[in-house]
Amino acid sequence: MKLWQKNTSAKKEVEQFTIGRDPEFDIILAPFDVLGSMAHAIMLKKIGLLTQGERELLLKGLKDIYFEIEKGQFTIEEGVEDVHSQVEFLLTQRLGEVGKKLHSGRSRNDQVLVDLKLFYRAAIREITEASIELFTLLTELADKHKADLMPGYTHTQLAMPSSFGLWFASFAESLAEDMDLLYAAYKLSNKNPLGSAAGYGSSFPLNRTLTTQLLGFEDLHHNVINAQNSRGKTEKNLAFAMAGIAGTLNKLAADVCIFMNQHFGFISFPDNLTTGSSIMPHKKNPDVFELIRAKTNQIQAIPNQATLLLTNMTTGYHRDLQLLKESIFPGIDSLLDCLRMSTFMLKEIKIKENILKDDMYQYVFSVEVVNDLVLQGMPFRDAYKKVGLDIEAGNFQPDQSKVNHSHEGSIGNLCLEEIKGKMQVALDQFDFNKVSKKIEGLLAH
Amino acid sequence: MKLWQKNTSAKKEVEQFTIGRDPEFDIILAPFDVLGSMAHAIMLKKIGLLTQGERELLLKGLKDIYFEIEKGQFTIEEGVEDVHSQVEFLLTQRLGEVGKKLHSGRSRNDQVLVDLKLFYRAAIREITEASIELFTLLTELADKHKADLMPGYTHTQLAMPSSFGLWFASFAESLAEDMDLLYAAYKLSNKNPLGSAAGYGSSFPLNRTLTTQLLGFEDLHHNVINAQNSRGKTEKNLAFAMAGIAGTLNKLAADVCIFMNQHFGFISFPDNLTTGSSIMPHKKNPDVFELIRAKTNQIQAIPNQATLLLTNMTTGYHRDLQLLKESIFPGIDSLLDCLRMSTFMLKEIKIKENILKDDMYQYVFSVEVVNDLVLQGMPFRDAYKKVGLDIEAGNFQPDQSKVNHSHEGSIGNLCLEEIKGKMQVALDQFDFNKVSKKIEGLLAH
Amino acid sequence: MKLWQKNTSAKKEVEQFTIGRDPEFDIILAPFDVLGSMAHAIMLKKIGLLTQGERELLLKGLKDIYFEIEKGQFTIEEGVEDVHSQVEFLLTQRLGEVGKKLHSGRSRNDQVLVDLKLFYRAAIREITEASIELFTLLTELADKHKADLMPGYTHTQLAMPSSFGLWFASFAESLAEDMDLLYAAYKLSNKNPLGSAAGYGSSFPLNRTLTTQLLGFEDLHHNVINAQNSRGKTEKNLAFAMAGIAGTLNKLAADVCIFMNQHFGFISFPDNLTTGSSIMPHKKNPDVFELIRAKTNQIQAIPNQATLLLTNMTTGYHRDLQLLKESIFPGIDSLLDCLRMSTFMLKEIKIKENILKDDMYQYVFSVEVVNDLVLQGMPFRDAYKKVGLDIEAGNFQPDQSKVNHSHEGSIGNLCLEEIKGKMQVALDQFDFNKVSKKIEGLLAH
Amino acid sequence: MKLWQKNTSAKKEVEQFTIGRDPEFDIILAPFDVLGSMAHAIMLKKIGLLTQGERELLLKGLKDIYFEIEKGQFTIEEGVEDVHSQVEFLLTQRLGEVGKKLHSGRSRNDQVLVDLKLFYRAAIREITEASIELFTLLTELADKHKADLMPGYTHTQLAMPSSFGLWFASFAESLAEDMDLLYAAYKLSNKNPLGSAAGYGSSFPLNRTLTTQLLGFEDLHHNVINAQNSRGKTEKNLAFAMAGIAGTLNKLAADVCIFMNQHFGFISFPDNLTTGSSIMPHKKNPDVFELIRAKTNQIQAIPNQATLLLTNMTTGYHRDLQLLKESIFPGIDSLLDCLRMSTFMLKEIKIKENILKDDMYQYVFSVEVVNDLVLQGMPFRDAYKKVGLDIEAGNFQPDQSKVNHSHEGSIGNLCLEEIKGKMQVALDQFDFNKVSKKIEGLLAH
Repeated sequence: MKLWQKNTSAKKEVEQFTIGRDPEFDIILAPFDVLGSMAHAIMLKKIGLLTQGERELLLKGLKDIYFEIEKGQFTIEEGVEDVHSQVEFLLTQRLGEVGKKLHSGRSRNDQVLVDLKLFYRAAIREITEASIELFTLLTELADKHKADLMPGYTHTQLAMPSSFGLWFASFAESLAEDMDLLYAAYKLSNKNPLGSAAGYGSSFPLNRTLTTQLLGFEDLHHNVINAQNSRGKTEKNLAFAMAGIAGTLNKLAADVCIFMNQHFGFISFPDNLTTGSSIMPHKKNPDVFELIRAKTNQIQAIPNQATLLLTNMTTGYHRDLQLLKESIFPGIDSLLDCLRMSTFMLKEIKIKENILKDDMYQYVFSVEVVNDLVLQGMPFRDAYKKVGLDIEAGNFQPDQSKVNHSHEGSIGNLCLEEIKGKMQVALDQFDFNKVSKKIEGLLAH
Repeated sequence: MKLWQKNTSAKKEVEQFTIGRDPEFDIILAPFDVLGSMAHAIMLKKIGLLTQGERELLLKGLKDIYFEIEKGQFTIEEGVEDVHSQVEFLLTQRLGEVGKKLHSGRSRNDQVLVDLKLFYRAAIREITEASIELFTLLTELADKHKADLMPGYTHTQLAMPSSFGLWFASFAESLAEDMDLLYAAYKLSNKNPLGSAAGYGSSFPLNRTLTTQLLGFEDLHHNVINAQNSRGKTEKNLAFAMAGIAGTLNKLAADVCIFMNQHFGFISFPDNLTTGSSIMPHKKNPDVFELIRAKTNQIQAIPNQATLLLTNMTTGYHRDLQLLKESIFPGIDSLLDCLRMSTFMLKEIKIKENILKDDMYQYVFSVEVVNDLVLQGMPFRDAYKKVGLDIEAGNFQPDQSKVNHSHEGSIGNLCLEEIKGKMQVALDQFDFNKVSKKIEGLLAH
Repeated sequence: MKLWQKNTSAKKEVEQFTIGRDPEFDIILAPFDVLGSMAHAIMLKKIGLLTQGERELLLKGLKDIYFEIEKGQFTIEEGVEDVHSQVEFLLTQRLGEVGKKLHSGRSRNDQVLVDLKLFYRAAIREITEASIELFTLLTELADKHKADLMPGYTHTQLAMPSSFGLWFASFAESLAEDMDLLYAAYKLSNKNPLGSAAGYGSSFPLNRTLTTQLLGFEDLHHNVINAQNSRGKTEKNLAFAMAGIAGTLNKLAADVCIFMNQHFGFISFPDNLTTGSSIMPHKKNPDVFELIRAKTNQIQAIPNQATLLLTNMTTGYHRDLQLLKESIFPGIDSLLDCLRMSTFMLKEIKIKENILKDDMYQYVFSVEVVNDLVLQGMPFRDAYKKVGLDIEAGNFQPDQSKVNHSHEGSIGNLCLEEIKGKMQVALDQFDFNKVSKKIEGLLAH
Repeated sequence: MKLWQKNTSAKKEVEQFTIGRDPEFDIILAPFDVLGSMAHAIMLKKIGLLTQGERELLLKGLKDIYFEIEKGQFTIEEGVEDVHSQVEFLLTQRLGEVGKKLHSGRSRNDQVLVDLKLFYRAAIREITEASIELFTLLTELADKHKADLMPGYTHTQLAMPSSFGLWFASFAESLAEDMDLLYAAYKLSNKNPLGSAAGYGSSFPLNRTLTTQLLGFEDLHHNVINAQNSRGKTEKNLAFAMAGIAGTLNKLAADVCIFMNQHFGFISFPDNLTTGSSIMPHKKNPDVFELIRAKTNQIQAIPNQATLLLTNMTTGYHRDLQLLKESIFPGIDSLLDCLRMSTFMLKEIKIKENILKDDMYQYVFSVEVVNDLVLQGMPFRDAYKKVGLDIEAGNFQPDQSKVNHSHEGSIGNLCLEEIKGKMQVALDQFDFNKVSKKIEGLLAH
């Protein structure tokens, strides 16, 4: 029952339709909602809208709820509209009237905005950590298999010598480069919307800089309309960044599925990580990587889902925005799953050795032989002609055991340290530890 | 006629189908192709694959072509396959055999990759500049109209007082924040792929660090497979960034179209910038903003177009990648058009004054009045009740001429300096001037 | 435990990752799985792979399970892989060895395919029925409000007289036309894939025509590879058809949201179907239609999600296909919700009368007046000039109470009977009753 | 110069921005614009708005223009806004004032709508014809290669015996089934919008049934708002249908690219249809099929591009709609190219024979052997066990030269006649000949 509620109650059908999947998502937002409220309470005291005593009561009450959430003891009760109402309800139940004072200078709109920003910020940290784990494994595998040659393809046609080291390292560097897009998304998530109220600010003398600092935000959305309009845009940018990483994993998965095909037969996994058939002993279905390929497609579809919800819409809050959660929340889980399962599987990958020694691969060495002749002084044209004639005459017998590539990033010079350095530089942009300290500091109030 | 060409010629149908729209795009890439070749030539001399004399000849010949391109004197001749062949053809025609030496240690794949990276880098600079122009105008308009109130909407319903200052400034800050995504795209464009050859490196002792420096790249794609796989990913990330800016402009355009509707009537433009009807004098069709809305949707569709071309594909070059240009090249032009036309139009925008003084807007002040009572000491609950009763009794007469919002980013405190500062910080990340100097330096060789 | 299972068990992580959301979707497929098995059993007897006694036993056992499912007594037990296994498990538990005989001449691939086809066919029936309900209401509202004029807009600018009758009827006809796309999707769902086994057929002398008839399919996918490749394509086509209907509802919702805006104020709904604010009595948030707008965007995103999963993939089953269910199953529910809530809400819509009599609308009658003068014999050019001069001189005073439009589909001639006829013709294509009878016949075995 | 034109001229920048790519598209629409005008003129005479003499003059003038267009002698002159204006300009220039009379009872909106409908209808006919050509070739190839076995894959793993006959036929049947979606799009294109004026009808007593008949439309959009709202929806449905066919071609292209890979080596094409390298004689790049794969992705992206332009938009014409042409017009050309190039290439396909006789494929016969034992009377369980033990013991030696599949649609029973029948039934829905006769009849006026 709400204060001053009209003498009408929404029809059951309307309530059911409008609430949708919010209850399951609101549980995820609960701890962030409490943190936002703590910062707001401290700020309200600072500008004179709460007494010191009220502030203490509220902070104590909020912290209690925070730790209940952490212990899994928090639920949104039947008939309570959302997480914000549940927290307010608990506070009022436990502390009395002071519980309602928290709502001054705040609207549902900026409250959920700040919850979402804090959640995305935390989710990006998780994505980063799962990416680092995979990255580290990829660099280790690259180093371990740097001498294991395999063919490289262009147009899906055999083309040049490659190596497993080169292949693993390519995904490592790709992941490192994906961090830049993720950092752009992080910056947008790391801006404080609190104080924008319903998107047009308020007449309370709020101190938005203070809540920015308390919550560890790097900056604020100054303009209150822009703060409101960042709903959706924040999700879209995060979806772009997730799609970036998903693109890298999608290619890895596509490669794994084809390399496990019997015609290639380059890699394999232990039986208990694949599915097979006892009467088709050659069959090792790469279900996990097929699903990673598929799930990364689902993730790559999210930007467009968000765009369709947002496009052609005018400034200001629309209820449509609620549905963004239905794409982005499961998408975050799915990306984390894909990153972790990639790591889990690649730890067990088995590589076929000496692939290129097979006769079928001799021509992939033809460019090598031409280049070697050139380096030994023969004009390119003559070298090319000689190799062509040798091949035609059946006299082409390259050394298929190794390649002498020495330049940066080539088979013989993987630049793993430089790639690790690139990852480190990308990661150093994020300020996760500073944020952690701020949140700890807030909880210590 | 190619060296060692097989005794078959591609059927005309195949040639026509495979060449597609490349000739029109290749002209755009021409200057960048020459720059890439100049850096490659300098590097080849450094590692002993060209003599000093050959280097001088080639650099001279390339610079001649560069300036011909600048003067619009360059065309790809009938029967010549692409820009790379045309440049090589001109060089050989003018300089003799040495013209062919440029191809050592390079393949068509990394040559077009470096052209594209250089082009995107330049395009991002143009996008940035057009964004700054619009941003600056928006901040000026915000300042000029900071006292002009208008209603703010939630759920497309009248909600709270807003202002034109707030509205203009919201797009300014949004644009400033869009720069972060653009910078992420810039970083990926600003990595040297040269030396990756067909995607698997080569046995030549290339000095990739040298070409990286000569071309003003911030870094290189170390891993050669990753360099090749960055084709498509570079475009996708640029498309994300462009979609970000497009999202901001789309909302601006959607607002303009509705604010020009006669029921709103908040803004107008001079007759020669709209279309109308002499027997419907009220009609002022916002064609330009309708088309900006539509074009920004086309731009927002590009990430998905790129993803469809790329997804589920294995490592290595595929001819499919050629078609990325058909989305991204016109998309860049379209975004520049949208930015510039937004600026062009907004310079002439006329604002309706004193909108909120109309009686129909009195209720948008109700929250103001409640908050004011609270600030004067009345408990929120009582204030809320009083205003509700006043409204019911027909006694609600708020001051509809101004609002007293003072917090950061609110109507009374637009924080334009902070928003300009945010844009400046975002722009400072880009190193356009350093790049310009590098390119000048390269051309001075 | 499976026969001849290898001495390895899938790691828990792999199982959890690969099973995904299948259990919740498999419950939906359960009744269709039983029907498919019944048809298969009858056919196996016909070709001599089951005895008459085995057939009777199996049909009895399957029917028992079918009615348990109908009563909600069916669950997929912990550790059982999927619905197919659960059904087989129950059969074997209850009937002994004969339960396993059902698997002859069938693979998991064509079994799930037939389940999906039957489910989609049933879902399309539900969508059709919900569409008819909305269609009928729209034609009733059109008839009721055929004399209620409102303005029509082009470029979101006031343009010409329109009417509520015309507006309601436009969505009715649009829905009727949407049925054609739905029928195309229906035809693809209504083709029997059973007998295609893993996508390459089998050496059993299956009688696929018989199962086609038993299950009420209109036709079969003759080619077994094509049958397998129809997985995904069936979903994509259904998604197209759903996106078609969603497009119609999206526009309806967009109109409702703007018509409820206070500047328009054309329509309203009872308080208990909207949300509002007691101190902003004018506020009636159209949450339901905002969510219909948003949900229809989610539905319109499904074709692209399906395409991303499918594109660039070679012939044959891939595990990726499993994830199609995660888009299409909830999408079906969501579309049904949107259709039903549109009907639910529109039953209560209130129309503002005499809108066009307001002075602000006089110019929307200018074209009417010109045309009337022409019909009275004045040359168009003179009529146009006269009206233009009248407007300029302030002498333009059209009759704003009615318009004399008489041609097909115009304000004065809504052609509701023709539109109803169009819907009927579209619906007559579907053979739902024939299908029902076939399924009843199958269950009567 | 327009009648009553205001004393302002659109700024050059605005004109350039708003005209966009329309001139190139308008040339395509020109013949359809003339046909629409002819029907309109006949109707105007019928309802008394033209005299018999005026009608004759106009029809003669229009037919002259029609044949000039056919001969390529028609251009849109500098400064003329669009095709409608150019036709009116020519008529007035040649016939005097009567040329302007055509505009009565018509607006630019329904004029372009009818042009587009007629163009799409013709384009669908072309798509159908190109599809039939490919379909016919596929059935011929299927018949020719029905005895040529190849492996079938699931999870990209070797699974079961398949055949080239089965493979070719799968695409034939898929194409036949794609016709249903195309027919749904055709029906929406084949509805007359003429008479809807600006989307709200008019006070002229138009005879819309007459123009429907004259232009060979199957039906009309009765409701005039719905007629206007069909702009965009017509394109979206056509895009769905094109995406359907594109999906079939995409899979064909994906298969071809992998089957040409050297590890598979199942198919090849003459040298002059592929690209290669003289020092890598094994290399045959499938550029044409890579581009078909890519182009079909571009086509599959069109539905989403159209949806983004249309979604969340209210009823009535918006200038945004103009940009639909930029996606759909080139998309039609591209689909026709893909269909024709697929036919062109497949005419030259060379198949590797006796693939399955290689030892590596023996296990793909294991299910065959089990089933054969079952058919000979051995219980399935025992048969499965026996084969499993034989394989383990190295005693598994299946006959790898043929498979005995006899059921509908299997290797031994391709059902090509049934598949051809399915295509015929699908094609019989279209009424192209009736339409042709109507258009001839119209031109005979």
